[in-house]
Amino acid sequence: MTRHSHMRLGAFLYPTGYHVAAWRHPAVPADAGVNFAHYAELARTAERGRMDFLFLPDSSAMRGDDMDALSRTAIRYVAQFEPLTLLGALAGVTERIGLTATVSSTYTEPYHIARMIASLDHISGGRAGWNLVTSQNPFEAYNFGLPEHPEHDARYARASEYAQIVKGLWDTWSDGAWLGDKDAGRFFDPDGVRPLHHSGEHFSVRGPLNMPRPPQGHPVTIQAGSSEPGRDLAASVADVVFTAQHSREQALLFAEDVRARAVKAGRDPESVVILAGVFPYVAPTRAEAEAKVERLQDLIDPHVGLALLSSELGHVDLSGCDPDGPLPDIPVSNAGRSRRDLLVRMAAEEGLTVRQLYKRVAGSRGHRQVVGTPESVADDLEDWFRSGAADGFIVMPPQLPGGLDDFVDLVLPELRRRGLFRTEYEGRTLRDHLGLERPAR
Amino acid sequence: MTRHSHMRLGAFLYPTGYHVAAWRHPAVPADAGVNFAHYAELARTAERGRMDFLFLPDSSAMRGDDMDALSRTAIRYVAQFEPLTLLGALAGVTERIGLTATVSSTYTEPYHIARMIASLDHISGGRAGWNLVTSQNPFEAYNFGLPEHPEHDARYARASEYAQIVKGLWDTWSDGAWLGDKDAGRFFDPDGVRPLHHSGEHFSVRGPLNMPRPPQGHPVTIQAGSSEPGRDLAASVADVVFTAQHSREQALLFAEDVRARAVKAGRDPESVVILAGVFPYVAPTRAEAEAKVERLQDLIDPHVGLALLSSELGHVDLSGCDPDGPLPDIPVSNAGRSRRDLLVRMAAEEGLTVRQLYKRVAGSRGHRQVVGTPESVADDLEDWFRSGAADGFIVMPPQLPGGLDDFVDLVLPELRRRGLFRTEYEGRTLRDHLGLERPAR
Repeated sequence: MTRHSHMRLGAFLYPTGYHVAAWRHPAVPADAGVNFAHYAELARTAERGRMDFLFLPDSSAMRGDDMDALSRTAIRYVAQFEPLTLLGALAGVTERIGLTATVSSTYTEPYHIARMIASLDHISGGRAGWNLVTSQNPFEAYNFGLPEHPEHDARYARASEYAQIVKGLWDTWSDGAWLGDKDAGRFFDPDGVRPLHHSGEHFSVRGPLNMPRPPQGHPVTIQAGSSEPGRDLAASVADVVFTAQHSREQALLFAEDVRARAVKAGRDPESVVILAGVFPYVAPTRAEAEAKVERLQDLIDPHVGLALLSSELGHVDLSGCDPDGPLPDIPVSNAGRSRRDLLVRMAAEEGLTVRQLYKRVAGSRGHRQVVGTPESVADDLEDWFRSGAADGFIVMPPQLPGGLDDFVDLVLPELRRRGLFRTEYEGRTLRDHLGLERPAR
Repeated sequence: MTRHSHMRLGAFLYPTGYHVAAWRHPAVPADAGVNFAHYAELARTAERGRMDFLFLPDSSAMRGDDMDALSRTAIRYVAQFEPLTLLGALAGVTERIGLTATVSSTYTEPYHIARMIASLDHISGGRAGWNLVTSQNPFEAYNFGLPEHPEHDARYARASEYAQIVKGLWDTWSDGAWLGDKDAGRFFDPDGVRPLHHSGEHFSVRGPLNMPRPPQGHPVTIQAGSSEPGRDLAASVADVVFTAQHSREQALLFAEDVRARAVKAGRDPESVVILAGVFPYVAPTRAEAEAKVERLQDLIDPHVGLALLSSELGHVDLSGCDPDGPLPDIPVSNAGRSRRDLLVRMAAEEGLTVRQLYKRVAGSRGHRQVVGTPESVADDLEDWFRSGAADGFIVMPPQLPGGLDDFVDLVLPELRRRGLFRTEYEGRTLRDHLGLERPAR
């Protein structure tokens, strides 16, 4: 059942596009990750499409330590901008679109992050959001003096306390605390600003934040957990839940589960926007769309395919296995467990060889691939949206900038014809775009 | 003796201006600290003046815990943007001017900061710099889980190792390591990227940085230490040394000392640019310039003036005293005796009231005030520059935006007439502007 009058749509900007081999495509700038003009173009395209927000993935380390393997791929966070400085720059060249970035709670301090996201919210006039994650890249630990990556549940426990602190810091100023009263000589109302005095298991943070309350009250919090602790975290702190789902039925079950957890956490389930990842190939004809898929799949280096599969499964060693045989038994590891489970299940259910699996993985890497014409892609999205399986989508273009242009120029007009997407921004803030209330202090 | 053909000039942007009461001036936006349009205007003004760089001060906490006292002043870091997100946004709205911000080494991780400054350097095409400080604000500790602020020498020891790591991370990619070779499927040259493998007293950081070498090789490092360990740190790691000096002779001694220390650290002393802070009031006539001083001085709230004077005198209690009476007897305290003696002697010799004395203290807060016409201010700066006391200045306008407009529109044309400042940018990067070599890896 439709929960909203129109879809919410985010643009996922892995710099060269989400497909593993996109950087080798002739129409993609290989240096996209450190090419600001490229990002500025993407931001303007998404804003021209009146999309809700940009979404930047991130990791604070190259994902791996084999330089030869790393040097063959653009998708292992080997060479891209730090996302909060990039969001600042994108705030300077856009007017209305929301600006969100991935921030790991595992190796950062909540005071710094609360301050930076609040700063982006003030700079952009209320357009900031953060995707609160726990680091899934075990190589980050070594850049921050840790001998090893903390285990899954410990990371989530830290993340939960972290989110509480960040939101608490945003509330240390009341909305009316800013005065700027020159005659009375009062810069702010001392009764409207209070310390946080947080003291918990992982953090001790006094506050207050040295910045007035953000324009949105709380900049938008995104969360993408799918494990048990991940879903609980999402249900308790997220305004937007970003999920990888392959079937509409599973997506419906997931959405119902998250909403039920939100109710248990004392929240209105309508205040949680659930967005499914979608990895779309769109062209005027289906044959052209399929040709786009093949063009990119043919660019996958086999070294890259195997390495990628290995890491998605929790850094298991696949070097000895037959690429054209079935997937061997994969032990549970300390990396993201939900990805491993999904892939093992997919290989078993569809009887995929290792090679077939790495092609699946290398292409969409866990997100749902949709291939077709503007009409058929719109049919698919409409079906998910109207059924209540998702309140909208995070669009993960396979290649950039072309894949975003395709979505904006081909799919969005079709969604608009069906009354499923806006023609103009109605509000000023990201919360306005998403139909989310501004939280009271 | 002149060491360079023209001065280097930075613009110090305390949001409302450096004077303690600037925020109460009718021409100053009281909300300057969180007003992006204000900063964008300042950046464009400084760029129009062809100044070398913007400089953002920072602290990660309000400086104090008495809300009533804090609420009366804009200068205690109570309400302003986080500077790295702000520099990102300013990169988006400027073309040529350098972009520098204060970053404390005391409560941050070098990997994060190396990455953010490198990111800003890539975003801006080689215009980034960082002012490496150790936190002087003891209230920061409580926002990062520490029971108390680390002591001075410990902070400097950490800062020194920190700077070494940051520069080491910037060198983990060789200049030629970026390939983007689509045909060969090589994103980068694996032989050109190496881990850092730093393991020291304070930090263990593996690296490599997940970003190609910054356009400047090393973004510009600024340092402002004046204690023994501070001067050693500046001499060993700084491209730019920012110093508060009141007499040309003392400034010359300081410059000679820093250059001698640089030689001892194995550096070319010409590779260290020494900039003195200057707090200028400029107007077409001297009387108008003096009226500008008085206008701001009259806006000082007695509570604020008394609190500042109290802290300068060794935190004595002045709350009961008459501002228009003489300075009461001030007991000798352990800390800051020379400053106390100076102020007590000044008050006695000149017959100053308490109010007159706090006005002396509250205006320039340690930096050198220069008041006059464009010609007389240019005379003063020329004298310091030609004598070798400074390679240029960090201009700290008393109020913003007006004080920066005055400097750009009145003083810079006069400096240009004398051949002391550029009329156009000659290079693209901040290193170009400062006449600094791009460091080899």
